[in-house]
Amino acid sequence: MLTTPDFTEITANADVRKTRHGNRAKCLQRLIRLDLPVPQTAALSFDTVRAIADGRMPDLEALVGLFGENTLLSVRSSSETPDWGGPGTILNIGMSDNVAEHLSETHGPDVANAAYTAFIRTYAVEVHRLDADAFEGPITPRLAKDAYESEMDEPFPQDSATQLAEVLRAMARAWEGTTARLLRQAQGAPADAGLGLVVQKMALGPARGVSGAGVVQFVSSETGEAQVTGRYLPRGQGRQALTEGAAQYIETDDRGPALEDAAPEVVQALRDAAALMRTRLREEMQTEFTLMDGELFILDAVRAPRSARAEVAIAVALAEDKVIPREEALTRIPPFTLNGLLHRQISADAERDVLTSGVPAAPGAASGRIAFTAATAQAMAAQGEPCILVRRETSPEDIRGMHAAQAILTERGGATSHAAVIARGLGLPCVAGATRLQLDMRKKTLTVPGRKVFHEGDVITIDGTLGEVLAGRTEMVEPALGGAFATLMDWSDEARDIGIRANADTPEDAAMAQRFGVDGIGLCRTEHMFFDANRMTVMREMIFAENAPDRQAALDRLLPMQRADFIELFKLMKGQTVTIRLFDPPLHEFLPTDREGIRALADALDLPVSRVASRVESLQEYNPMLGLRGVRLGVTIPEIYEMQARAIFEATIKVTKKGAPIEPEIMIPLVSAKKEVELVKARVDAIAAEVAAKSGQDFTYRLGVMVETPRAALRAGEIAESSAFLSFGTNDLTQMTYGLSRDDAGRFMSAYVQQGVFAEDPFREMDIDGVGELLLLGAERGRAVRPDLTLALCGEHGGHPDAIAFCRKAGFNYVSVSPFRVPVAKLAAAQISIKDKALPEDADPSL
Amino acid sequence: MLTTPDFTEITANADVRKTRHGNRAKCLQRLIRLDLPVPQTAALSFDTVRAIADGRMPDLEALVGLFGENTLLSVRSSSETPDWGGPGTILNIGMSDNVAEHLSETHGPDVANAAYTAFIRTYAVEVHRLDADAFEGPITPRLAKDAYESEMDEPFPQDSATQLAEVLRAMARAWEGTTARLLRQAQGAPADAGLGLVVQKMALGPARGVSGAGVVQFVSSETGEAQVTGRYLPRGQGRQALTEGAAQYIETDDRGPALEDAAPEVVQALRDAAALMRTRLREEMQTEFTLMDGELFILDAVRAPRSARAEVAIAVALAEDKVIPREEALTRIPPFTLNGLLHRQISADAERDVLTSGVPAAPGAASGRIAFTAATAQAMAAQGEPCILVRRETSPEDIRGMHAAQAILTERGGATSHAAVIARGLGLPCVAGATRLQLDMRKKTLTVPGRKVFHEGDVITIDGTLGEVLAGRTEMVEPALGGAFATLMDWSDEARDIGIRANADTPEDAAMAQRFGVDGIGLCRTEHMFFDANRMTVMREMIFAENAPDRQAALDRLLPMQRADFIELFKLMKGQTVTIRLFDPPLHEFLPTDREGIRALADALDLPVSRVASRVESLQEYNPMLGLRGVRLGVTIPEIYEMQARAIFEATIKVTKKGAPIEPEIMIPLVSAKKEVELVKARVDAIAAEVAAKSGQDFTYRLGVMVETPRAALRAGEIAESSAFLSFGTNDLTQMTYGLSRDDAGRFMSAYVQQGVFAEDPFREMDIDGVGELLLLGAERGRAVRPDLTLALCGEHGGHPDAIAFCRKAGFNYVSVSPFRVPVAKLAAAQISIKDKALPEDADPSL
Repeated sequence: MLTTPDFTEITANADVRKTRHGNRAKCLQRLIRLDLPVPQTAALSFDTVRAIADGRMPDLEALVGLFGENTLLSVRSSSETPDWGGPGTILNIGMSDNVAEHLSETHGPDVANAAYTAFIRTYAVEVHRLDADAFEGPITPRLAKDAYESEMDEPFPQDSATQLAEVLRAMARAWEGTTARLLRQAQGAPADAGLGLVVQKMALGPARGVSGAGVVQFVSSETGEAQVTGRYLPRGQGRQALTEGAAQYIETDDRGPALEDAAPEVVQALRDAAALMRTRLREEMQTEFTLMDGELFILDAVRAPRSARAEVAIAVALAEDKVIPREEALTRIPPFTLNGLLHRQISADAERDVLTSGVPAAPGAASGRIAFTAATAQAMAAQGEPCILVRRETSPEDIRGMHAAQAILTERGGATSHAAVIARGLGLPCVAGATRLQLDMRKKTLTVPGRKVFHEGDVITIDGTLGEVLAGRTEMVEPALGGAFATLMDWSDEARDIGIRANADTPEDAAMAQRFGVDGIGLCRTEHMFFDANRMTVMREMIFAENAPDRQAALDRLLPMQRADFIELFKLMKGQTVTIRLFDPPLHEFLPTDREGIRALADALDLPVSRVASRVESLQEYNPMLGLRGVRLGVTIPEIYEMQARAIFEATIKVTKKGAPIEPEIMIPLVSAKKEVELVKARVDAIAAEVAAKSGQDFTYRLGVMVETPRAALRAGEIAESSAFLSFGTNDLTQMTYGLSRDDAGRFMSAYVQQGVFAEDPFREMDIDGVGELLLLGAERGRAVRPDLTLALCGEHGGHPDAIAFCRKAGFNYVSVSPFRVPVAKLAAAQISIKDKALPEDADPSL
Repeated sequence: MLTTPDFTEITANADVRKTRHGNRAKCLQRLIRLDLPVPQTAALSFDTVRAIADGRMPDLEALVGLFGENTLLSVRSSSETPDWGGPGTILNIGMSDNVAEHLSETHGPDVANAAYTAFIRTYAVEVHRLDADAFEGPITPRLAKDAYESEMDEPFPQDSATQLAEVLRAMARAWEGTTARLLRQAQGAPADAGLGLVVQKMALGPARGVSGAGVVQFVSSETGEAQVTGRYLPRGQGRQALTEGAAQYIETDDRGPALEDAAPEVVQALRDAAALMRTRLREEMQTEFTLMDGELFILDAVRAPRSARAEVAIAVALAEDKVIPREEALTRIPPFTLNGLLHRQISADAERDVLTSGVPAAPGAASGRIAFTAATAQAMAAQGEPCILVRRETSPEDIRGMHAAQAILTERGGATSHAAVIARGLGLPCVAGATRLQLDMRKKTLTVPGRKVFHEGDVITIDGTLGEVLAGRTEMVEPALGGAFATLMDWSDEARDIGIRANADTPEDAAMAQRFGVDGIGLCRTEHMFFDANRMTVMREMIFAENAPDRQAALDRLLPMQRADFIELFKLMKGQTVTIRLFDPPLHEFLPTDREGIRALADALDLPVSRVASRVESLQEYNPMLGLRGVRLGVTIPEIYEMQARAIFEATIKVTKKGAPIEPEIMIPLVSAKKEVELVKARVDAIAAEVAAKSGQDFTYRLGVMVETPRAALRAGEIAESSAFLSFGTNDLTQMTYGLSRDDAGRFMSAYVQQGVFAEDPFREMDIDGVGELLLLGAERGRAVRPDLTLALCGEHGGHPDAIAFCRKAGFNYVSVSPFRVPVAKLAAAQISIKDKALPEDADPSL
């Protein structure tokens, strides 16, 4: 098929963008077009390399002929997917006895011999897979050639075309090898990802005069701010300057010698090149250059590496300098990048004494004393002592301890375990599934094989971004939320066209959400307000009430507490909508399960232990997720919802009187039948009328439903008759659609994802096919009955770009996410809107 | 509106069927048309009675005029819904001084005075709600009239029209009263159920000569076989004969005097009348008659009351005598009636010492010794001692004890609790939710307030049909499954056009299913095969295996046991299809949870207690329903399914070799993604190939999926690509669609149904709106991909006529129900098919 040479001489200005040549070739062509001093270059397309792998070699004589006889060349890979399994080695071509002789003349025989020997060794080992040992030790080019010839039974090739042919074949083979394939697959590269090659005339760094090689960029990889970073190695070649100690600085520098000292005009040329590239390539580039006897060659330029923070700063600066439009700045930043900015992190310079590692379940880092129980964590926090809650796995009973801790560490579970989800919601670092930990909960010790035993109160550090557990305290870097980040958030708000609210249960959450800028609170889980020790006692009295008056008495004591919660929340949100979910969890979550706790509770309530124990037992459930909770409690013990409704309305009147009117939204959880909504609505409406009459002040509110059961989604039409809004709680909805408890899935989820049973953990990325269809059905049926129905998604998925895109397309009004997911959600929403609008006006967006 | 009299004189042959007059009027008209000696009769329509209730009285003078002056009349209610809240009293009209004088002449003054006094008293109390005390004691008509007049301030009415007006008004008022309305509502009568009235000339039983009243039927209410049953009271009136001791037999009888002795021609006339009614009214009737001076009057005839057994016998006999077509015999019997036939029952004559009552959760009765734990029940059963398992509530751990017991009694739960469901499946009587019981599980006592304390080993009796707990042993009646019942089943098989299979886990279940006649086994739950003590030990070894070889060793020991199970099952089913569900429950169901059990297990496995305890703890789940079970176990520990597949295939070969070839079906539980099916299918196919190669014998089998998660229903299209059948497991599907655990729903389900939140317990009657939609979606999507896909429903709902009708309409191939539900399902299926075919050919059945 392929019989003629298929290489393109970039220097002859062929347009490599029109065929598949890879990023490096394209970038080099752009540099050439900018008239930057790029050495003569030729590019081999993907097709050519594939032909080479199949044994059909192009006319390499002709290719080498382009560069002239006895020219040293370098060969480098060029793919669309540079880090995905390509051959790692860059091989120089064209070394021969003649060239060695020439080098000997220009640089002396030592340099020439060393270069030739190294070339033969590399060629033999990398290209022909010969035994490296045969080329070890103090050998000469002669000995190296002998070793090669005895192994290969043929003389070491002297002509560039033969060398090039072998090198190309070896690179093509490596690209098609199993390891490289698997690597590409694992990193999600397309199955037909291709390999191109770039052949470039070598600029000799070890030449005479001012010669050497270096790498430079004019921006900080850490902060994204302007800063000259780079190294220069006199007489160096390639990227040697980055690894070898004798390298110099670029600009004149107090700390030592610099390239600028010897060749200020070269540094100015590099500075000009970088500025040109920034404007014309619209990117901060890192430049690889060689000086040959005072002459500058730019071998390559790549996108400057950067931290999350630098990524944001660079994009924003490019837009502010009008190099790129704002929309492009917004779409350049992968949303999850922002997670790296929001949390305190371990300083890059800090020493890390890593004890063990686990799943990086919630980003950020914190140091503190080990607390093995929620109670201990609360006690430490009460004394102002930062602590890390360490548990086998967490359960709802640990919530208070989690609130009190600086970070969470669990032996079991994964990225969607209870600990992980709550930690992300609270913005706490979390490492989950640190399975090498040995916890002894009785002796209260934590052991890692081969390390000292840690006791309760010992200090450790959690790096939730990397999933590491470190011994002792570690230096931290605070998050930088001003400057470019704040600008990016403002731009996101301008660009996006779907609401972003926050899930916030406490004033602290609400304040954090406000700091990131939100459109309101989409989910306030009121039960978390009862976990405080004082209120817990009253809750328990309510649960143990023998009769209606006793129960009412306990609820009457909770009423002012709830009212105060809501007043504080409403004030913080300054008139923005707050959606309050009525009480949801099963009552047994408020009761102890161990003997000690039961005894203490019996003391506190002045009841016989046996009565407390039997009540605790009678409330236990086989499947609490599917039991007496949510609206089922609201229907069977209506007084709880009545108290909550009263607290909400009285708080509404209070803040309205103080000049900050608010329209609260009341959300009913776990609905599966329309009658549940009707019953609760009738009661809540009655309370509203009563409060309005008593206070003489009118107010409005909206009542809606949290859609968490498949049935509620299917019956959304009739449910919408009594609902102003439907908010899809995709956490529970996913559990029920799959018949899969998030708390129990950890045991096999990773195996399931690895084997491809689930494409992704459905608690992490929303299952569009199953759960998504229920959302679409619910949305469609609800809006058919009530066209102005507000639609929302609340739950972990709301922070994921795919889910946001899905909701936007389905006409949802907003998504509500935990405060620390708000920036990601806002940026993602902005990107989706920009991409959608970028479609030609007559394009069908559903295609 | 209504200004003219609106009564219809039946004797004048007006057709009461054309207006709404009620059943009694219609029946009387039919009797008249058969020329039976019915007294002169008039009927008032629903509209007339409604007008009376509104105060608009028809021309009653004209009505009374039809019967002539001074005629005694009787007034009785006539509604479409006779037992639903109508006025209970039958009032005679027309009593006056003149009539009393006439009675005195014909029957003497004592009879006349007593009749007149009784009439005044009843009229005053029933019609005018006067104080009954005013009419008590030895009073005369004069005193009674005085009492009436002083209370009412007006004279006692002497003319029939006035009396009739007051009576009609009182009856209409009572029908519209709150009590009657609620009663109708509670019994499910339509909201517009109406009251009609029948006015009939009274035949005087206390007349001279051969006079009296009686009731007779020529069929046994107990067995449905021919038998004269009835009583006759000389000089009696109305239904007195049924309650007063001096009554006689109908036919000449050894035991005492009989009507036939005095008036054989009257008995022959009654016999002829019954035969005529049987042929022309197509029903066995019970006749109410009066003899007046030798003349026979038939006052009324109603459908003869009957037991479930008699219901079947009568319908079958009518069809065999060609009085009605077979189809009508089939449709006459409410399917659930059959439940009363299938189980041993307490003899009607037995003395019942009722201790307490609860929910009648599974029909039938049994006596046995109290066992408070599953272990005790097993021990008693092992000694051949019938026992009753008494628990607060049952859990999967109790299964073995339930298998061993004769009946189940629980303190908690309801008709869909774990105990109830399993008991119905096993055909065991069960009383659940006997909340007055006081169980002390430590002291092992059962107490009912006011009764002696029962200890473990004491004998009690459970009546699961009535929901009663009786002290001691009670006489039982065996079920009658031959004769008419068997005929009915044969006819059902001929008429139905949807398959009925049985859920059968054991050879006993399968034998029972065969006894009722089934189309195969639709669900064989293999895990129940492991609950046997021997196998349990091996299962536990498998669970505790440290490595793959140890696990395989345990499975290798289970293999022959499973193979033997399947061989026995296949042999019993004689070539009928058997659908075997692969292992489903979470492994922790096989482990003890209490200290004692853990210690015993540690001994048995020769492991440290701490290791056993920690493994038990590590397998515990928050929501076992939603955890590591079903196909999730099959994917993560594939060896279990491989062992089961091997056992199935080896058993298939074995029975095929013995000349009873079978095509087994293998069903994968708890699927939520198509890849799960593909993985299991690949392994099962490989095992099949291996077994076929090793044995040199070919066989076929079908692999399918149990659809229990909403997601499997939604994704049925892609799942069907690898599935030969989809069987909807509506128990779990209901749990997940509602987000409601059956084991935990008992606490609020009755409140929910009472308040109308759920129209019905969705575990009892399938939720057509929600779960049903998922079935339709799944069926449609599956068939779209694979038109020959077999569709089935397995689960408790399959025994309910509505669910069967739903499945048939949706094109399902069969439903599979527990063996004891098979007769109900077969009859229901036959009825549905008959009703559907009875539609005119051009009718659209979807209307």
